[in-house]
Amino acid sequence: MTPDIQKILDGDQLAGSRLISLLENRDRRGIEMLKAIYPRTGRAFRIGITGPAGTGKSTLVARMISHLRARGLRVGVVAVDPSSPFTGGALLGDRVRMQGHEADAGVFIRSMASRGQAGGVSRAAREAALVMEAMGYEVILIETVGVGQGEVAVAHCVHTTAVVSIPGMGDEVQAMKAGLLEIGDVFIVNKADREGAGELTQILESVVGMRTYAPGEWRPPVVQTMALRNQGIDRLVDFLFEHRRHLESTGSLADRMAANELHFFHQLVLDMATAILLRDSAELHRLRNDLCRHAIDPYAAAEELLKKRLPA
Amino acid sequence: MTPDIQKILDGDQLAGSRLISLLENRDRRGIEMLKAIYPRTGRAFRIGITGPAGTGKSTLVARMISHLRARGLRVGVVAVDPSSPFTGGALLGDRVRMQGHEADAGVFIRSMASRGQAGGVSRAAREAALVMEAMGYEVILIETVGVGQGEVAVAHCVHTTAVVSIPGMGDEVQAMKAGLLEIGDVFIVNKADREGAGELTQILESVVGMRTYAPGEWRPPVVQTMALRNQGIDRLVDFLFEHRRHLESTGSLADRMAANELHFFHQLVLDMATAILLRDSAELHRLRNDLCRHAIDPYAAAEELLKKRLPA
Repeated sequence: MTPDIQKILDGDQLAGSRLISLLENRDRRGIEMLKAIYPRTGRAFRIGITGPAGTGKSTLVARMISHLRARGLRVGVVAVDPSSPFTGGALLGDRVRMQGHEADAGVFIRSMASRGQAGGVSRAAREAALVMEAMGYEVILIETVGVGQGEVAVAHCVHTTAVVSIPGMGDEVQAMKAGLLEIGDVFIVNKADREGAGELTQILESVVGMRTYAPGEWRPPVVQTMALRNQGIDRLVDFLFEHRRHLESTGSLADRMAANELHFFHQLVLDMATAILLRDSAELHRLRNDLCRHAIDPYAAAEELLKKRLPA
Repeated sequence: MTPDIQKILDGDQLAGSRLISLLENRDRRGIEMLKAIYPRTGRAFRIGITGPAGTGKSTLVARMISHLRARGLRVGVVAVDPSSPFTGGALLGDRVRMQGHEADAGVFIRSMASRGQAGGVSRAAREAALVMEAMGYEVILIETVGVGQGEVAVAHCVHTTAVVSIPGMGDEVQAMKAGLLEIGDVFIVNKADREGAGELTQILESVVGMRTYAPGEWRPPVVQTMALRNQGIDRLVDFLFEHRRHLESTGSLADRMAANELHFFHQLVLDMATAILLRDSAELHRLRNDLCRHAIDPYAAAEELLKKRLPA
């Protein structure tokens, strides 16, 4: 075992950060290290916190950290920032707002830019979560913004998904359009002191109630919070752990984890195949030239490239 | 040439719809037909209309259709609906709102669900646009909702991107976080009769002005519209055509189209490789089983699958 791997397993934040950076850059050494620590992963409780921009998710996450710490748990946070897909720069805002926990070794926060790739986010976020698990963090919060793409990808790598909304976002139906309703295990109405909070809570309750539940099936609760005033957070955390216990007691936890694992395997196959197929080659160069002067259509070009490299 | 292909080239909407459905389902016959009509594509002006949910994009698109029709142009619309990524059901809302043009053969509207895959949307939307081009539609509007993932993918298949925002969405900085600013060729402040419209326009103007422009370089204009009252639309359409002329006169149009074509080629390579690599096989079955009982980590499993099928 290399000294770095031992440091990571000992919870060293600098070593953990370095590994996450290697993984973000798809550095071969990072992947080898991740394979080495893989047996030490899979034990944490992974929670996704998702919802539209402006719903106060970062503040909520900062409060959740405090409550989880008060319960004696070590908390890792992966904040996926959908800022600039072209420059790849993560905004500092989220980090700054969470700085209350900066000096606490029981808290490890990592921001990452989404870079315009739903698949890329979920891989990087999942890998960061794996590193944090190997470091001994017991709860991993994965915060994402989105409208039904990125956060669905993230739902594939968490155990429990909390969907955040606030009153007065405009057309409440838009929230439902986004497909967020279908991935929520717990619904949060944040900024619950705002006008319309009761109405939004009712709408969410009635949507949750629209389908029938088998006996013992999980029925997503709707929780009001006021993250800025630190209200409702304990109840929210209780619900999250209740959902976790529900998954464990019904055996769905193993199913979810197996489905997650397969999903990740498929994603890795595609990532690796991409790297091989689109690596510079004389043939790729010729096909690209033909495409640009319209000597071939993209379907025929793709078929030609694959015919030789990857026979069907 | 099969009768269906001739019908599509003649602009038959039923035949066009059928082909788009085949393509959405990745039906082999659809791809063969698309290859056959490919030489008749690439001549339309493709415009992306994107922005957060609730900004009135559908109403805006309906108004733009009327103005483009009044200029004698045939208009195709691809409305990408980010609703339910799991059920794949497109909401009727957008379509209903655009129904004013239902009886007009010079207008062809197609809604599609995004199904939770940014890549999938952009492929299906691009293919629908190609079919519409072959049918003789001269302007193709591609309407998408998103926060920096799906719409960036769509930016890869249009010539001009218009980014829509409205006053009072909350934190204006959130809009910038989404990376939308970087893909906008024209910025639209819709619902411009609302309080805060002047302020939002100023913010956008100053962000646009933050960078320096080379002589002759396109500087994205900010246009106020009130789609519900049909105000500002003509000016918006003028700006879109001005951008198109700018692309043509500077030679950037050819560059953009070549970049789009390469991007699409890469996407097709990956889609086809996926279909081959993840097809049912004894080996895939064994690897999946090993994964679920933790006998192998997903990195090693992916490497093993690829080692045989796609040597590096």
